[in-house]
Amino acid sequence: MAKLFLSLSFLLLFHGCLAFQQQNECQIQRINAVEPRERIESEAGFTEFFDSNDQQFQCAGVEVIRHQIQPQGLLLPSYTNAPILFYVEQGNGYQGMMLPGCPETYEESQQQFQGRQGGQSLQDRHQKIQEFHQGDMVAIPSGAAHWIYNNGQDDLVLIVLLDSTNFANQLDQYHRRFFLAGNSQQGQQQQGRQQQQGRQQRSWGRRQQGQSQEAGSNNIFQGFDVEVLAEAFNVDRETAEMLRCEDDRRGHIVRVERGLQVVSPSMRRQEQWQGQQGGRGRGRDNGFEETICSMKVRANIDDVSQADVYNPEAGHCNHLNSFKLPILRLLQLSAERGVLHRNAIMAPHWIMNAHNIIYVTNGNMRMQIVNHEGQAVFDDQIQERQLVVVPQNFAVVKQAGEQGCRWIAFRTNDNAMINTLAGKTSAIRALPVDVLTNAYQMSREEAQRLKYNRDETVMFSPGSMSSRGRPPRD
Amino acid sequence: MAKLFLSLSFLLLFHGCLAFQQQNECQIQRINAVEPRERIESEAGFTEFFDSNDQQFQCAGVEVIRHQIQPQGLLLPSYTNAPILFYVEQGNGYQGMMLPGCPETYEESQQQFQGRQGGQSLQDRHQKIQEFHQGDMVAIPSGAAHWIYNNGQDDLVLIVLLDSTNFANQLDQYHRRFFLAGNSQQGQQQQGRQQQQGRQQRSWGRRQQGQSQEAGSNNIFQGFDVEVLAEAFNVDRETAEMLRCEDDRRGHIVRVERGLQVVSPSMRRQEQWQGQQGGRGRGRDNGFEETICSMKVRANIDDVSQADVYNPEAGHCNHLNSFKLPILRLLQLSAERGVLHRNAIMAPHWIMNAHNIIYVTNGNMRMQIVNHEGQAVFDDQIQERQLVVVPQNFAVVKQAGEQGCRWIAFRTNDNAMINTLAGKTSAIRALPVDVLTNAYQMSREEAQRLKYNRDETVMFSPGSMSSRGRPPRD
Amino acid sequence: MAKLFLSLSFLLLFHGCLAFQQQNECQIQRINAVEPRERIESEAGFTEFFDSNDQQFQCAGVEVIRHQIQPQGLLLPSYTNAPILFYVEQGNGYQGMMLPGCPETYEESQQQFQGRQGGQSLQDRHQKIQEFHQGDMVAIPSGAAHWIYNNGQDDLVLIVLLDSTNFANQLDQYHRRFFLAGNSQQGQQQQGRQQQQGRQQRSWGRRQQGQSQEAGSNNIFQGFDVEVLAEAFNVDRETAEMLRCEDDRRGHIVRVERGLQVVSPSMRRQEQWQGQQGGRGRGRDNGFEETICSMKVRANIDDVSQADVYNPEAGHCNHLNSFKLPILRLLQLSAERGVLHRNAIMAPHWIMNAHNIIYVTNGNMRMQIVNHEGQAVFDDQIQERQLVVVPQNFAVVKQAGEQGCRWIAFRTNDNAMINTLAGKTSAIRALPVDVLTNAYQMSREEAQRLKYNRDETVMFSPGSMSSRGRPPRD
Repeated sequence: MAKLFLSLSFLLLFHGCLAFQQQNECQIQRINAVEPRERIESEAGFTEFFDSNDQQFQCAGVEVIRHQIQPQGLLLPSYTNAPILFYVEQGNGYQGMMLPGCPETYEESQQQFQGRQGGQSLQDRHQKIQEFHQGDMVAIPSGAAHWIYNNGQDDLVLIVLLDSTNFANQLDQYHRRFFLAGNSQQGQQQQGRQQQQGRQQRSWGRRQQGQSQEAGSNNIFQGFDVEVLAEAFNVDRETAEMLRCEDDRRGHIVRVERGLQVVSPSMRRQEQWQGQQGGRGRGRDNGFEETICSMKVRANIDDVSQADVYNPEAGHCNHLNSFKLPILRLLQLSAERGVLHRNAIMAPHWIMNAHNIIYVTNGNMRMQIVNHEGQAVFDDQIQERQLVVVPQNFAVVKQAGEQGCRWIAFRTNDNAMINTLAGKTSAIRALPVDVLTNAYQMSREEAQRLKYNRDETVMFSPGSMSSRGRPPRD
Repeated sequence: MAKLFLSLSFLLLFHGCLAFQQQNECQIQRINAVEPRERIESEAGFTEFFDSNDQQFQCAGVEVIRHQIQPQGLLLPSYTNAPILFYVEQGNGYQGMMLPGCPETYEESQQQFQGRQGGQSLQDRHQKIQEFHQGDMVAIPSGAAHWIYNNGQDDLVLIVLLDSTNFANQLDQYHRRFFLAGNSQQGQQQQGRQQQQGRQQRSWGRRQQGQSQEAGSNNIFQGFDVEVLAEAFNVDRETAEMLRCEDDRRGHIVRVERGLQVVSPSMRRQEQWQGQQGGRGRGRDNGFEETICSMKVRANIDDVSQADVYNPEAGHCNHLNSFKLPILRLLQLSAERGVLHRNAIMAPHWIMNAHNIIYVTNGNMRMQIVNHEGQAVFDDQIQERQLVVVPQNFAVVKQAGEQGCRWIAFRTNDNAMINTLAGKTSAIRALPVDVLTNAYQMSREEAQRLKYNRDETVMFSPGSMSSRGRPPRD
Repeated sequence: MAKLFLSLSFLLLFHGCLAFQQQNECQIQRINAVEPRERIESEAGFTEFFDSNDQQFQCAGVEVIRHQIQPQGLLLPSYTNAPILFYVEQGNGYQGMMLPGCPETYEESQQQFQGRQGGQSLQDRHQKIQEFHQGDMVAIPSGAAHWIYNNGQDDLVLIVLLDSTNFANQLDQYHRRFFLAGNSQQGQQQQGRQQQQGRQQRSWGRRQQGQSQEAGSNNIFQGFDVEVLAEAFNVDRETAEMLRCEDDRRGHIVRVERGLQVVSPSMRRQEQWQGQQGGRGRGRDNGFEETICSMKVRANIDDVSQADVYNPEAGHCNHLNSFKLPILRLLQLSAERGVLHRNAIMAPHWIMNAHNIIYVTNGNMRMQIVNHEGQAVFDDQIQERQLVVVPQNFAVVKQAGEQGCRWIAFRTNDNAMINTLAGKTSAIRALPVDVLTNAYQMSREEAQRLKYNRDETVMFSPGSMSSRGRPPRD
């Protein structure tokens, strides 16, 4: 752990603002690695839901979903009452986030436009679009409408954290998605392995008691009178009716037949620069940098050259916090990308100020999670595409399996602070030898070994065990 | 919406402090326009209570009351566990707010005093007094004792928001009023149209279970021993007993027979300046500006020349947020004064970060409020003196009736951010045309009309509908 | 009350950060002075628990415990999910707080070391150690591991506030202690006067429903696999097993037979300077002042020469808030040390923005606590070692008994603001005379006496009653 960083983050707490997360029910006796339980299918992809009634999600006050969007699939515009942080597990795409009062800064020049459109006279302009790629983390504030499009060749897979108990949500603790288009009432059909589990369908947001299980979510325009909409948009009644999407059976992810046409710098430059950049178009400035409207919402968390913790024998970690991506200050969330090599160990540790939601993207690892009574509430393998919540302050240790392990972790604090129990910056090393000898009833030599035998910081190589004191394994 | 303003408010969130509001139960299927349900009568006025058990208030975590104070009526000193924001619907008055440690800066000069009082030797000094007038919004922090006096010719009518779930309230979510004087136990009598509704009386604050419904609130001095009070104030027992107001049957608003005598700049200058100022004495500096003690707690929200949104055909809006009145930063509240002309429309919109409590002061309007399932939870007229809560993120549209409509809106965030769905700064205009064509399955021409046909921002004139595409109304 | 201070604290709220405390259930009809109900015994001391299910603690959202540590007793390293503020009621000791990423800045010079240890080659270094003495207040952030040692001649007695509903705790509202060593499962035995009260044992933190009452807390290493621990620490299996302390029956406070050997400036200088300093070694700089790692966590609150309120006839108060000890900003807590002389009175008052947890250290006083209905929810003597919670905004008056009274008060806001009802800076004095005459139906002369007869500020001398208006006591 970089000392400067931790000191800074503490100082920030003092001089700036205090993180807040509502309190939850955390009387947890047993945590299980979980997979998505429900699915909403659409024309061009589907969304899976981890069971938000599972105690671990109730404790952390978050919900996790997983979008899988086919090439040329468009996730229709919507907003939620919870802030969102998502990781791009696979593929390339872009999103538009509609911020109130921000100008439409992406516009076609007359020249461009005439070239593309030929004789038509409809020139487009719209708000900024953010591209993202595998390994990126993207933030969306609560209440901000956004849409997502897959412009790649492969399915776009997004792991999405919704922080339902965030201070920004003044409704109750259930996340709700307000769609601006589409009609999931008729379009959605559940398929796949979850079908046998009794709950055939899933609505976006908590369903009312007594309401039909068949009912899904309509878009918000369906709640408005058509006449009023026609007048508000100053269009004819037919156009206003289209906003309601009443006969739309495509679901919430729709296919864009010939590909989405938007104004985007990299869409055009990609062709020229693709060779040089290896297909990875990073965001470029657009000359309108002063305000929230050009706020950065995306950061790569997968680049080993930017690792915060690096041990060639053991693995590495990239942290994404509000120092790197300031919008996380507003969201009160942060993230970690972790990579452990074969059999390597992540130091036993606890996080002081955040819950930790861990999703394995590749390989597997054994985890042990220990509560305040010294009981392991989790002691199991966590496999690819499984998820586990480590509640705040619970102690945890991880050891990668034979294939190593990669994971993404979401944290409910914009500057989560980790305390290790073993290694160079650990609590044990911070203790005087004499406290160790008395606490653990051991000799000074044993205490010294406990403090100094592991000189690595967070990621421990499996082979670094000194032969000196190592007992034969039974 | 001014772009700069919204950008600034976002920046502030980053660099400053995060708004907080406790989460509430918002499983709302139906919202109704409500009127006050209960009333506490007093010698010189009455207070009406909107039903705080109504689900919309439970969701927003607020309570709303309405004071009507007769000329020369004095609302006795009290403090509450919730911050207060009130709108002066009618009349003129002033309030004294007792801030701990602030000096008594309003004092009679010896000369003045002798002139007024004649032979008596009692010269008065007290803390600052704030005048207010119809159209003003006044803020009172949680726990700050205050009194209010009607010095005008007409009844003084105040619409009062109490934000019970504000961070500043560490008690439970019910607001309590602690009176420093009076005795509402015997003095209060309920009258008026609510009498038949089963609850004959109302106490200030939540009543304990099992407690008699007849019991009301005494002032806090009744809880203290008279001997202790006599010693604390260093007065005789008779004077100390007067603090308890045991035989006082006047209720919480009392009549000041010959008018309240206080030291006040405008009270004296009013006579000289009345002609020039049209009876509206604005607060003047008193040379003690450095501290919280001279903090501004009042702002006019009704002056069309200060409107933030102005459309001569449609109407206007004045916003009052923490940039204009910094104390709102502490209260985490803001307000809007809205005026819609005959048949004009307020753009369909949602508020990103706040509940919106709307009270109609004049005229009426049709409102539709839509939840995340696309269902209209409210689709009705809201009449003069009725109130409706729009929960955070719920979509809403308003259309004024034949007489136009004026309302006041309280918001549970010191910088509430609005997202419009139609018009110049709307989410729809921020979308690329191709997203619209694919989302709503419409032609590029229809999408263009949807984006650009309404060039107004928030308030839409009813007559601006272009004849081109308008269908005959059926 | 210093006016500047109060103004500053208000300003800070504006420019800085807002205090936050979760809301609790405060429908309190009756408060009782309480004593500890349960006790956990250990080899070298015990810990007592005030009943956290008592309504007054539920309302304030805090828990209070009391450690009594014998000379050479070591409270084993642990961390909690709640921030801690403790008062040193008796004795001398020091604590080590292990902050993640902070360097081990207390190290033996080679010279020193050789002198002390002789032939051995084990040189120690560890993180900073903070000494404390009777009258000190010490702060520990949530999740920060710490240990405490009694290096004095007398028992070390600590009154500990745990703010379970603090924003920093994202688990549920019950405090949990995570031990890094020891084994309270077998070691603890309850003794003393609480034995007959039905609950024989107490665990650290809330016990699960259905779990055996016999179960206690193990240290967190017991939840980890020994093999994994051996590998993580790079030690042999036997050493790793020692971390689990399975056969340890000493409990959570252990005896250090020949005294704890740590690196500490004052431990060595104490011998030289003891005469000059009267045994009170104050913290000295150690040349590493830039960061959180050298943050001050301790302040004396018992020094009358530093009193914030001082009245030689009546008593004095020392306030400890975030202006004096900045870490309190992070903890959102503050404290007061109060001393009232024989029969002296503390002005009737209410605290605007905090609950007030009062523990009497010496003597006794009569307190009256009044709710918003003017009812005394407490009207009794509070004796030495008893505790009472005054909920936010509840009015309170205190009068010391024949021996006078000393107390410590913890407050759930880092800058608690007090409003007095009588005296020089009171709300009554801030009122215009004419408001008093009309509110209390008294003459101007009586109102003047009410305002001006008590010219003291917060602490009132018993003898200052003017004979003029004093009636005979009946």
